[in-house]
Amino acid sequence: MKALKGNIIFTSSPEKFEVFENSYLVESKGKVYGIFKKLPQHLKNIKIHNFGKSLIIPGFVDLHFHAPQFQNIGIGYDEELLEWLNKYTFPEEAKYDNEEYAKRLYKKVAKEIWRNGTTRVSLLSTIHRNATEILMDIFHKAGIGAYVGKVNMDRNSPDYYIESTEESLSVTKDWILKTKDKYPLVKPIITPRFVPACSEKLMRGLADLAEKYDIKIQSHLSENQEEVEWVKSLHPEYETYAHVYDAMGLLNEDTVMAHAVYSNEKEIELLAERKSFVAHCPNANYNLASGIMPLRRFIDAGVKIGLGTDVGAGHQVGIYKVMSQAIQASKIKWLESGKKEEYLTTSEAFYLGTKGGGRFFGKVGSFEKGYSFDALVIDDKNLGDRDIRSIEERLQRFIYCGDDRNIIKRYVEGKVLCEPI
Amino acid sequence: MKALKGNIIFTSSPEKFEVFENSYLVESKGKVYGIFKKLPQHLKNIKIHNFGKSLIIPGFVDLHFHAPQFQNIGIGYDEELLEWLNKYTFPEEAKYDNEEYAKRLYKKVAKEIWRNGTTRVSLLSTIHRNATEILMDIFHKAGIGAYVGKVNMDRNSPDYYIESTEESLSVTKDWILKTKDKYPLVKPIITPRFVPACSEKLMRGLADLAEKYDIKIQSHLSENQEEVEWVKSLHPEYETYAHVYDAMGLLNEDTVMAHAVYSNEKEIELLAERKSFVAHCPNANYNLASGIMPLRRFIDAGVKIGLGTDVGAGHQVGIYKVMSQAIQASKIKWLESGKKEEYLTTSEAFYLGTKGGGRFFGKVGSFEKGYSFDALVIDDKNLGDRDIRSIEERLQRFIYCGDDRNIIKRYVEGKVLCEPI
Repeated sequence: MKALKGNIIFTSSPEKFEVFENSYLVESKGKVYGIFKKLPQHLKNIKIHNFGKSLIIPGFVDLHFHAPQFQNIGIGYDEELLEWLNKYTFPEEAKYDNEEYAKRLYKKVAKEIWRNGTTRVSLLSTIHRNATEILMDIFHKAGIGAYVGKVNMDRNSPDYYIESTEESLSVTKDWILKTKDKYPLVKPIITPRFVPACSEKLMRGLADLAEKYDIKIQSHLSENQEEVEWVKSLHPEYETYAHVYDAMGLLNEDTVMAHAVYSNEKEIELLAERKSFVAHCPNANYNLASGIMPLRRFIDAGVKIGLGTDVGAGHQVGIYKVMSQAIQASKIKWLESGKKEEYLTTSEAFYLGTKGGGRFFGKVGSFEKGYSFDALVIDDKNLGDRDIRSIEERLQRFIYCGDDRNIIKRYVEGKVLCEPI
Repeated sequence: MKALKGNIIFTSSPEKFEVFENSYLVESKGKVYGIFKKLPQHLKNIKIHNFGKSLIIPGFVDLHFHAPQFQNIGIGYDEELLEWLNKYTFPEEAKYDNEEYAKRLYKKVAKEIWRNGTTRVSLLSTIHRNATEILMDIFHKAGIGAYVGKVNMDRNSPDYYIESTEESLSVTKDWILKTKDKYPLVKPIITPRFVPACSEKLMRGLADLAEKYDIKIQSHLSENQEEVEWVKSLHPEYETYAHVYDAMGLLNEDTVMAHAVYSNEKEIELLAERKSFVAHCPNANYNLASGIMPLRRFIDAGVKIGLGTDVGAGHQVGIYKVMSQAIQASKIKWLESGKKEEYLTTSEAFYLGTKGGGRFFGKVGSFEKGYSFDALVIDDKNLGDRDIRSIEERLQRFIYCGDDRNIIKRYVEGKVLCEPI
């Protein structure tokens, strides 16, 4: 057991911050044991790490990150989604059949995610099994919790970057069997790229694997207008894009869908009914000129939401930066809706990027008793005077103005994460 | 004379980048002398600073920065403009009657602006003359080019933060006389806060001072819907908000107006006719839920545009970050307008944050012959592989993903800027 001492702040619900000034966050067996203003008698002898005036917050949770697009971030944003995929994304992803390239770049990805305080992440790899296993291994060594998905695509894809249906399913099955119990914090996740790139047979086969081996699922949904029309033309028999995934057996409470910018009421309703997660990726939605997700309508409908960086369409690796982007986007939606769809408060945005997405990983993203001890220590002394500000204000200021230099310590399941090498 | 060697890139017009790989940028008497692939015979003996693979770009130009709001950045964005002014801004600005406070905080401002590679900035101070002079002195010592404005406000302002009309005018006059020829690169600028806070008499008096002493003018325009309605109710006889400034004599080619989110066609037309500048502040416009400026319509009308951070309503000090925000905002406008108002390209955004705003300072923001030698050296080796990318792509990646750590050298008028102390 040990305790971190400092100014503890987190969200157990979206409405407000829980603040414990100058208190002890106690860990036992990798979980949160409790928060104490004064340590009780039976904890008097545990090791204490005193972080003084620093903030102690839950680690960040990223629900959507394309690891092989790391080399592309900040580039090519003059294109929309479908052109961007063909011009930038697929050619880069195809390089990952080279294991040396994968090793070199994926190490950089782990380092950058570590630097920015993300302690749990849902990653998309490429169609290559070996590179995917390399990525899993690197995240295991880094100590970061991760779902890692080998991408599946068997139609409407470039000749140089496509699989046959049978090959895609059999390789995925072998990879799942090999990796599902291999690491404590890194797990495989079924990853059909998106409806246009996956045949019905492939999607149904992947759903069978997910059910048989109890594997989570991630994909993309209603990101861009053209893409939505494309899906409609491929599958006119289904009511919405999400109804296609649903019919294939891919939409359940273990599913996370990224984007959902163009979801109508029926799609939102289905996502709520299936208890699926949505990864809100405001930054990427700006960069590819996709649009702004009507976030408030999802929240009101009870859909489970977390945040995603969507690297490489998103250019920011820090989920704290995506929080401010999500707030900004929600303010535009508020204006667009005639001030009906309320914009996000800071505590709501923080919740989305910690416990909101954390639910996809279990009891993650909060400091309630029994939650995984995933924590960050934030030294914000360079960001302005501290003594005239409340803990909430200081956290808000870090979210807007801070960067990786302010994150001075990272814990996952109670263990300190060293910089990945 | 001296030369910087590296990969030189800038925009002499918005449409495209000018790129000179592995070339020499030659300085003479603080101005750009020329760019050479090979140094000609008569320049063989000048001092050469070789920056290898690094990028060499013009310094950034920020047309709107509230220096006394630095302590507030990243805080209070749950409010809209008018509440935010009363709750956060005015109480903080009032503190600047304390010269020690002003000195301590304004030094931080200079340091942060230096760190982020802004080499020219139009600053708003407070109503306090002494603090304003302190700010001018600090920027002079830092070597950064700056217009610095003592703020004027004589109505609709809190009791603790207001001036009488006579006092405001006489203090401003004395301050102008004392400072207008004091520094080579730091100059006073007339700064009526905004129409609601300035009586007609004050505005007309300030216009007289501006004309008499040939002083530039800065203020705020059509930032927020409520504010626009307020101005309409105060001055129903004028067609638009800008027509009020115009009638007072405050709108000319030496004027920069920040925001212009809610300008209609008539206001845009007037700004174009008067050859006035507009500071586009997308970040602040998001944070205070003001909205998105219809930038393309201003550009098409021929209005002169630059970028502003609008610290503290904006939370980013780096103009490169405002460039990506401006591109993102323009993409939402593009969607909103049914894809009619074209979004910004990277070269257009870069132009706005260098030469676009630089025109307010003279021949600034470009590497054309005779322009001020204001330059930054960008080392981007941590941002991804360099050899597989073009110089344009590397600059785009720095704009989206870089930070102050990538800026390894800053020059203004040919002189290296050391970190302000």
